Amino acid sequence: MKNLSPFFKAKSVAVIGVSKSPEKVGHVIFRNFIDGGFKGKFFAVNPNAEEILGRKTYKSVLDIEESIELGIVAVPAEFILKIVNECGKKKIRHLVIITAGFKEIGNYDLDKKLEAALAKNKILCIGPNCLGSFDSRTSLDSLFLPRYRLQRPKEGNISFITQSGAVGSAIMDYATEHGYNFAKFISYGNAMNIDESDILEYLGNDSETKVICMYLEAIKDGKKFMDVAKAVSKKKPIVAIKGGITAEGSKATLSHTGSLAGSAEIYFGAFRQSGIIRAKTLQEMFEFAKILDKSIPPKGKRVQVITNGGGYGILSTDAIINNGLEMAHMDKRTSTALKKQFPPVVIVSNPMDLVGDATTERYQAAIAACLADNNIDMLLVILLYQTPLLSTDVVNTIIEANDMKKKPIVVVSTGGEFTELLSENLEKNNIPCFDFPDNAVSALKQLVEYYSRKLQ
Amino acid sequence: MKNLSPFFKAKSVAVIGVSKSPEKVGHVIFRNFIDGGFKGKFFAVNPNAEEILGRKTYKSVLDIEESIELGIVAVPAEFILKIVNECGKKKIRHLVIITAGFKEIGNYDLDKKLEAALAKNKILCIGPNCLGSFDSRTSLDSLFLPRYRLQRPKEGNISFITQSGAVGSAIMDYATEHGYNFAKFISYGNAMNIDESDILEYLGNDSETKVICMYLEAIKDGKKFMDVAKAVSKKKPIVAIKGGITAEGSKATLSHTGSLAGSAEIYFGAFRQSGIIRAKTLQEMFEFAKILDKSIPPKGKRVQVITNGGGYGILSTDAIINNGLEMAHMDKRTSTALKKQFPPVVIVSNPMDLVGDATTERYQAAIAACLADNNIDMLLVILLYQTPLLSTDVVNTIIEANDMKKKPIVVVSTGGEFTELLSENLEKNNIPCFDFPDNAVSALKQLVEYYSRKLQ
Repeated sequence: MKNLSPFFKAKSVAVIGVSKSPEKVGHVIFRNFIDGGFKGKFFAVNPNAEEILGRKTYKSVLDIEESIELGIVAVPAEFILKIVNECGKKKIRHLVIITAGFKEIGNYDLDKKLEAALAKNKILCIGPNCLGSFDSRTSLDSLFLPRYRLQRPKEGNISFITQSGAVGSAIMDYATEHGYNFAKFISYGNAMNIDESDILEYLGNDSETKVICMYLEAIKDGKKFMDVAKAVSKKKPIVAIKGGITAEGSKATLSHTGSLAGSAEIYFGAFRQSGIIRAKTLQEMFEFAKILDKSIPPKGKRVQVITNGGGYGILSTDAIINNGLEMAHMDKRTSTALKKQFPPVVIVSNPMDLVGDATTERYQAAIAACLADNNIDMLLVILLYQTPLLSTDVVNTIIEANDMKKKPIVVVSTGGEFTELLSENLEKNNIPCFDFPDNAVSALKQLVEYYSRKLQ
Repeated sequence: MKNLSPFFKAKSVAVIGVSKSPEKVGHVIFRNFIDGGFKGKFFAVNPNAEEILGRKTYKSVLDIEESIELGIVAVPAEFILKIVNECGKKKIRHLVIITAGFKEIGNYDLDKKLEAALAKNKILCIGPNCLGSFDSRTSLDSLFLPRYRLQRPKEGNISFITQSGAVGSAIMDYATEHGYNFAKFISYGNAMNIDESDILEYLGNDSETKVICMYLEAIKDGKKFMDVAKAVSKKKPIVAIKGGITAEGSKATLSHTGSLAGSAEIYFGAFRQSGIIRAKTLQEMFEFAKILDKSIPPKGKRVQVITNGGGYGILSTDAIINNGLEMAHMDKRTSTALKKQFPPVVIVSNPMDLVGDATTERYQAAIAACLADNNIDMLLVILLYQTPLLSTDVVNTIIEANDMKKKPIVVVSTGGEFTELLSENLEKNNIPCFDFPDNAVSALKQLVEYYSRKLQ
């Protein structure tokens, strides 16, 4: 396995090619080091400046007296070979090369020379032509986008590998806004000597990563990828989305990454064989990752729905059946006991409709009974906070129930600001929340399938 | 056609059953009148109080000296007949009856008596057992939920009819938060003498309503509904979601609304024949309504994709093909002219990749050329704002292009706060925005299909 740790955990970093112009890539990266939470040492390299952003600059990495673990390179392509050789001399073994202008624009000659220079200097590189990488725990951040445009996610357990820098940055920004927390992010660009399989293998062994998400267009080495994915997916879930699944889309990948995407059927077959969970849309990818990150394994596929809105119970039932899950049939003792506790208007069935005047106590009793019932594998709890009798402490009830780690519990809540605040609180406590029944059930299905494959 | 105008436009309203307890339904409704923007007169009726919330109360509607156009009734079921007869005497011809406790809990006797009393007094009623109604232009608001729990939407052109009060309230709250604006909202509950078809017919003729959304479980009179829907869908789009489409879900509707939902296939067939657009999920319903509300009719199904992120171009292409739309092939003169203007790195094709350093000028040129090209019917514009060179005035460029009303333009932007602000601005100017390519393309498909049916 290639040692990728310095890309995320290096304690001394040189940013090579820090321009004086604030909008230039190297400048943005260096400013992000100054503004960000990185605790290590960092240095700016620029042959034509003494000082940038109030910090001393170095003409070359060779002028830096301390040792450097990671170089982030944002120089024009014409200087890349010189820089790589200097880094080799400085014993830097890891580079993120942001610089573009290689095979992706047909410059195969320079491409080969760079590859040779990296090999000669024993340098592992992310890129070239990439967006960079990010680690939420160390704030080691080589992304060349400013923070006001691209928010950086909080510490979490989802890691994201992307072939497309633009897809990656848009997604990370969206995810941060929507409360998804990340461990690591890697845009690997041209994948010169670190490809998607190397990163997948590394993240498979990374204790900070619980779920791996991937955006892929073309895979460099299919056999290597499948071997790695098979091994990793036995340890942790991999959720992937494939760009270029139609003939027209595949043709478009040719101009994007310089390689044809190949038949969708072959890819999907490979995904299945490798235990990779396929997301059909970017939204699905997030939602699948969320449930796989937060939920405990379910024992089976029988879902109990608990709701304070009849319509949502019905929509959930439709979704459960259409996704190949099962409506749980609770033990007769459970229903008898609940009927005694509840007013007659409550429908003790599946869906269990606690009706519009449901209180926290009613939810508490229903959830406790369902957690104790062996005929039920998972709980889909619908909380429509619009009704005034449902007090906000229902959230604590759910958190306490979930903390017992008996069965997966997911929550569906649709609404505005009030609802969103309560959902945030639930998610902080490892209860995946979804806006609508369909999204929750599609995610539950993936949870069930992942663990049933894992147990085989 | 039944005259439902007073439910939305009444200038004098009596709230009947205004309790002193702040959490009681009648109290909440009356407080909403005091806090809200309703410009008409409103009165509180309570036989046991002199004053509530600083306002004089009346023992009975008969004690109110002025004439009353609409009554909102929130008394216990046992008093309902007395109240209806008093309203009849007062010549109130329209009532929203929030009160529950009729056939939905098996009280068929009282149900029949209420029906007879309404008929005798020539009263049209929404409900009983409903959430109420809302008009964004008059702020006439009979919803019994407090505003801090359920936000009220701004003035818009989407009207929403819901059989389930809980679904309705959750959805309206969510929609308001996400910038969807409404004309009218109606939760019709037991549909005693105004059913889904009556409301549909009314909204079909309502000039404030451009798109009608429906949540349905069971339809009272299938023939009447289809006749009305056929006529209305020729005038404006109807987007419906049906709860209870599986055998299990249908069974659950029995306990929710007291009627079996019936076979999904029969419903979907009826939807198709009546020109109703079927949404599979609540999220789809919103997204379809948005594009149908904001977009002009497309001339055909050929989509041109313009992007600053190659990956998003590929995902859009996949979605276009998978949804049965077509990738436009621009005129040779268009591509020749654009290639002259753009640096060689720009890919003038479909998707057109303006690449990561795309500027507003590049978008402007691309959009203008595509609007002028007769081989293109619609524009799918992807704006990934994470890249620093894309200035925010690109939004104005899109707004100006859209204001020419030449072709439908939709925008895909994925991101955080910065992105959301820019999307809000676009949507205010009638450009539908979507988080991800798939959602945009599914919506475009509905736009194409609706207008191609309409032209038949």
